[in-house]
Amino acid sequence: MSVTGPAGFRAAGVAAGLKASGAPDVALVVNDGPSHAAAAVFTANRVQAAPVLWSRQVVSDGRVDAVVLNCGGANACTGPGGFQDTHATAEHVAGLLGVSATDVAVCSTGLIGERLPMGELLAGASAAATALDAEGGPDAATAIMTTDTVSKQSLVEGDGWSVGGMAKGAGMLAPGLATMLVVLTTDAEVGPEELDSALRGATRVTFDRVDSDGCMSTNDTVLLLASGASGARPDPVAFDDVVRAVCADLAGQLLDDAEGASKTIEVEVVHAATEDDAVEAARAVTRSNLFKCAVHGEDPNWGRVLAAVGTTGAAFAPQDLAVAINGVWVCRDGGVGEDRAEVDMSGRAVTVTVDLGAGTEHATVWTNDLTADYVHENSAYST
Amino acid sequence: MSVTGPAGFRAAGVAAGLKASGAPDVALVVNDGPSHAAAAVFTANRVQAAPVLWSRQVVSDGRVDAVVLNCGGANACTGPGGFQDTHATAEHVAGLLGVSATDVAVCSTGLIGERLPMGELLAGASAAATALDAEGGPDAATAIMTTDTVSKQSLVEGDGWSVGGMAKGAGMLAPGLATMLVVLTTDAEVGPEELDSALRGATRVTFDRVDSDGCMSTNDTVLLLASGASGARPDPVAFDDVVRAVCADLAGQLLDDAEGASKTIEVEVVHAATEDDAVEAARAVTRSNLFKCAVHGEDPNWGRVLAAVGTTGAAFAPQDLAVAINGVWVCRDGGVGEDRAEVDMSGRAVTVTVDLGAGTEHATVWTNDLTADYVHENSAYST
Repeated sequence: MSVTGPAGFRAAGVAAGLKASGAPDVALVVNDGPSHAAAAVFTANRVQAAPVLWSRQVVSDGRVDAVVLNCGGANACTGPGGFQDTHATAEHVAGLLGVSATDVAVCSTGLIGERLPMGELLAGASAAATALDAEGGPDAATAIMTTDTVSKQSLVEGDGWSVGGMAKGAGMLAPGLATMLVVLTTDAEVGPEELDSALRGATRVTFDRVDSDGCMSTNDTVLLLASGASGARPDPVAFDDVVRAVCADLAGQLLDDAEGASKTIEVEVVHAATEDDAVEAARAVTRSNLFKCAVHGEDPNWGRVLAAVGTTGAAFAPQDLAVAINGVWVCRDGGVGEDRAEVDMSGRAVTVTVDLGAGTEHATVWTNDLTADYVHENSAYST
Repeated sequence: MSVTGPAGFRAAGVAAGLKASGAPDVALVVNDGPSHAAAAVFTANRVQAAPVLWSRQVVSDGRVDAVVLNCGGANACTGPGGFQDTHATAEHVAGLLGVSATDVAVCSTGLIGERLPMGELLAGASAAATALDAEGGPDAATAIMTTDTVSKQSLVEGDGWSVGGMAKGAGMLAPGLATMLVVLTTDAEVGPEELDSALRGATRVTFDRVDSDGCMSTNDTVLLLASGASGARPDPVAFDDVVRAVCADLAGQLLDDAEGASKTIEVEVVHAATEDDAVEAARAVTRSNLFKCAVHGEDPNWGRVLAAVGTTGAAFAPQDLAVAINGVWVCRDGGVGEDRAEVDMSGRAVTVTVDLGAGTEHATVWTNDLTADYVHENSAYST
């Protein structure tokens, strides 16, 4: 599975000493072709890390030969020197692989505002190049973990081709992506424009609707690389579906491993006037700390759902609102509905359905509960 | 001090049995005139509790004779029956005082979605009417406490007149007010239009910029009643200043008693192109759970400040951003500034200054840190 599931890719993950723990921290993914088509989406944050600025340029011509990823430092807010570090990393990897630096994407994750230890990083990249293997996907997926407790990998088969992927990110997941690095690979014969279309269509309804803690990172990157090694040219609709399935699978894995979370919450808004209304209302619920605390306490507190929906501009009349929690319509007609004691919230998965009674559109946004463990992990991260 | 500081007001607070603890839970404030001018601001939430819908009508003619307030139930999302309960409460109080029900404002706070125990509430209102006293302000302030650990009262003297106030609310504090009930009184001779102008000007830069947990209530109400009993007609500018001072004092007391908080955080944005930009950037920081956790951990994590500012549409160039925490400019020119080890965050007050380098406007928004105690209080509230 993972990024070496599809033919035409090699990968590796090594320990370069960037993590104090000595765990693997540098990953390399190489596309051996024959095609090198690529597409990417990046964080919508206006404060962007050096590797985001670099990789955006790299992918702009639709070709990527390799991706080097490191933990142990985000290389964000590091000024011109930090950008030079990213450039030097790409040049180093290009030299090892005999490709052009302008075809080497770079991804970094870790603390903002600190320069990378370039000696360790470049030595790590060299070691990763030596370790490249057609079965190396799992090693690469492990080497990009930060506060993740498990590696995230996926592989979905098409008709004679497949799409694989790896992801990291266990907090700061928010619209416009997250401190989330994702590399997707396919051996289908697909050009850069179709890759771009498939990737944007998929991320719009998966990673962009994962809102674990409402915070948006400076480093989010999702890359999709196509080797064409299968020789198969997929039906565009089938290809889009498989890319979306892999993104949905990886997004679900991120939610299930979110920092300190004990619940994965799906907020589904139905009967909205527009999809935008549905997304706005759903996001308001997923960003309510009070509601997220209530879910943590397994309290079907529909009042906090209504209070959140009431802050939006979505079309609805308060007396038409209805809310179901795990299938029990605890709020109907804007007031008390079925007995809240009937709601079972003991499992990890919690589904909240909000009926706006205003139209035919719908959308889903995912989040996690707010826990003391989340506070603990994030109050001690950089010290 | 409190609402009976200014002449012409009586107040009371009694235990009516709405709180399981047996603590005082019904308050009454009466304006004995000669003037009965009033103004109010209410929650911007589109899901509004019955007492908000009622009191908005009451105050629309610029006259309020009395305010009855209860804990133990928000009377929100309770349908037509809930509205009837509010109406009946106003009628009951009007009968006790010999005034018109349409001049009796009602405020409620507590759980959403439950009908009020009307027998207890009306008996409590009767007891409060009997207990009305020109020194009753502190009792009233105590009777509106919910998760507050201390009562909030204020009194500022003008030139021959004064403005007093009481407030409750220790969570769910957000723009467009909070689960916050505030009654302000003055013995100045001021008409409804000037009261309205003074109140809106004051709340815009005080209660509206308190964003403890980003959640907006269905019940927020701030009332300002004028008795004219001092016979003094204040200078409008002086009156506006005193109303703002009382609001600022009460807002600060709310922040200092916010649920589970260990820090009061002031986020000041300077050199913004517009005041709206400054408020947007400041709010983004006050709503970042990651940043609020970092403050809880006394970690001067300026990267999380930049990541939050980067999500806004405010005018700035990333390389021009600067951030000071408690006076130490830990970020300059969008990158590393002074040594973060110089920052002392051991006190309760934490000031974050963000320089957008884009203009001459500024604004301040206040919040609290995110703590395990907040999670604990809010995951167990309704169960």
